[in-house]
Amino acid sequence: MTGKIYSASTTAPVNIATLKYWGKRDTKLNLPTNSSISVTLSQDDLRTLTTACAAEFFESDKLWLNGKEESVHGPRFLACFNELRALRKIREDANPELPALSKYHMHIVSENNFPTAAGLASSAAGFAAFVQAVANLYELPQSPEELSRIARQGSGSACRSLFGGYVAWEMGQEADGSDSRAVQIATQEAWPDMKAAILVISASKKETSSTVGMQTTVNTSTLFKYRTDVVVPQRFKEMSEAIVNKDFETFGKLTMIDSNQFHAVCLDSSPPVFYMNDTSRLVIGLIEKVNKIYGRVVAAYTFDAGPNSVLYYLEKDELIVLGLLKAAIPDVDGWDKKSYTSSIAPAVPDGVDPCSFEVLKEGVSRIILTGVGPGPRKTDEVLIDGNGLPK
Amino acid sequence: MTGKIYSASTTAPVNIATLKYWGKRDTKLNLPTNSSISVTLSQDDLRTLTTACAAEFFESDKLWLNGKEESVHGPRFLACFNELRALRKIREDANPELPALSKYHMHIVSENNFPTAAGLASSAAGFAAFVQAVANLYELPQSPEELSRIARQGSGSACRSLFGGYVAWEMGQEADGSDSRAVQIATQEAWPDMKAAILVISASKKETSSTVGMQTTVNTSTLFKYRTDVVVPQRFKEMSEAIVNKDFETFGKLTMIDSNQFHAVCLDSSPPVFYMNDTSRLVIGLIEKVNKIYGRVVAAYTFDAGPNSVLYYLEKDELIVLGLLKAAIPDVDGWDKKSYTSSIAPAVPDGVDPCSFEVLKEGVSRIILTGVGPGPRKTDEVLIDGNGLPK
Repeated sequence: MTGKIYSASTTAPVNIATLKYWGKRDTKLNLPTNSSISVTLSQDDLRTLTTACAAEFFESDKLWLNGKEESVHGPRFLACFNELRALRKIREDANPELPALSKYHMHIVSENNFPTAAGLASSAAGFAAFVQAVANLYELPQSPEELSRIARQGSGSACRSLFGGYVAWEMGQEADGSDSRAVQIATQEAWPDMKAAILVISASKKETSSTVGMQTTVNTSTLFKYRTDVVVPQRFKEMSEAIVNKDFETFGKLTMIDSNQFHAVCLDSSPPVFYMNDTSRLVIGLIEKVNKIYGRVVAAYTFDAGPNSVLYYLEKDELIVLGLLKAAIPDVDGWDKKSYTSSIAPAVPDGVDPCSFEVLKEGVSRIILTGVGPGPRKTDEVLIDGNGLPK
Repeated sequence: MTGKIYSASTTAPVNIATLKYWGKRDTKLNLPTNSSISVTLSQDDLRTLTTACAAEFFESDKLWLNGKEESVHGPRFLACFNELRALRKIREDANPELPALSKYHMHIVSENNFPTAAGLASSAAGFAAFVQAVANLYELPQSPEELSRIARQGSGSACRSLFGGYVAWEMGQEADGSDSRAVQIATQEAWPDMKAAILVISASKKETSSTVGMQTTVNTSTLFKYRTDVVVPQRFKEMSEAIVNKDFETFGKLTMIDSNQFHAVCLDSSPPVFYMNDTSRLVIGLIEKVNKIYGRVVAAYTFDAGPNSVLYYLEKDELIVLGLLKAAIPDVDGWDKKSYTSSIAPAVPDGVDPCSFEVLKEGVSRIILTGVGPGPRKTDEVLIDGNGLPK
């Protein structure tokens, strides 16, 4: 069978939280126990590309992720898909001349431009790209805020990948999640000189999934509720202001203490949940030392549910931060990805002990140099062939 | 010069907290921000032996620790010494026939029966032995509670080493510290089958001292006050009851979650303070796994301000706990110290992955097998010679 295939493609970015999401008050709807903030990273370096297509002759819904067919029956996928279909149906009911895409089966093909093995949270970019691609295909009039509410049901942090720049996920209060969605705090253009260096650190063993880890924390940590109810609301306000004011000192300090507090409540869980390892801690020690030497926040570290370190810094401090990393881990993959980094000279500030570099060299496998970037973008790049199958 | 030398000797034990002391509300007086609980360990395996002597012909106060002369001008040492001298003076004023020891200079000689390099908190046993030895020399009528108040000023946790068995340090409320002292919750005889295995784990770098670390937490952790004001008072009550009821299940659970929470507030500090390393975390994972397999608390881990692991377990579970450790770390120093352990067969419960043993073998350097023990004891063993100098 053949026939007309309707298709749309989009890319969507990865985001890395600076005020951490950890804990759900509703596991089905992915409603969080606290608001969070993130920086959207450049899609030149990290992005998901998704093509969504629909055709009358498709016999079933199908999904391919990074070349592998996956189930379309997962509740996360269905939650997003059903809501998007319903929104299309409303349009079709209002305008019978529209093709009846909501009745057609859909094929989704999705690919990352970075190795899944790197342990970077790809579900955020993945669900954001999926929701945006389908919204494009269905020509939905919904705003990014509205779409973020849908993407949230796929993967909580995916809602933040619907925007570029600096993004807040407002936890909301409603039981149905209708007010739990992302909003943009500032555009990429408003504070364009935010850089990020991701140090990919290999984990020695399988980590606790974030889904399991966060509910262990919610259910067992005696410190957790104080964090969500008292600490985070204050930090949310302060970090939002710091972003609007382009106050890196405050932004960086809050980023570091909030990463540490997230890992602290993981440790306060039973059984305790560990994501950072000795290499991660070495990175923390190194950055704390450099900041102390300079008497200001030159770089801010943050760690998600894994050992990888993300360092945020301003472009003006690139020579300091990358000079240090060039000295510490000159041979890891990733330096060659940016033409300009070849000219950065290794530089170790007085007072930093290069002994730790040996252990870093062992633990870090790759560096990804990137920075703040835009939200999802329509693209002409298409991942399906003329039969509606992956190219 | 020669003349009569008055001398007295005592031994004092190490104690390992099960409800952690972390934070001072008064750094000069060593007044804590929360009450704590510990188990006193057997002096057969870990103890300080101290001889205190006084003579009219001594020309100055002198102190030797583990064969090395140390300053007697430290404020911690002086705080204890001055108070003990003042108490002796009261006795002498009341009874002029007593030798005027309070006017004589003193020589103190102190030795541990375990390597200082092991990183075991020796200051608790050290100050407890010092205070008890001088109290013996001065024939002071003060109770162990009273002496614990004095030892506390030397090293906070030293107050708990004035008692055997199961000991609480009640934080007290008074600004002068007069009600901040140790009391016995239960004697060794009341719950004699408590065993402890200490795994000595080498630290890769110099750790933050506990004095610095705890004040960093007090000054910067936003979760800390909730711990001291809300969490610990409840746990203190529950753990005291568990000890009185010989309820190991509750005791062990509280011991583990409180160790984890102590390290959590360390991580919630700025800069973050780390004491556990990857080997420590492997021990946690192993014990959590074994407890899960057995469906009860077979062993409870706790970690102080360093990577060493202390495992508490009941004698009835010795074959399980030591069988596992025999399988994991058969070649470390310490197994030969106990004649009976040679007969314990290595045994790995179904479900435990022996792969982690390789990393444990690398990280653990020694095992110390011990158990609950008594408080300070007078001894005839004397560490000074006829001239009042170290033998």
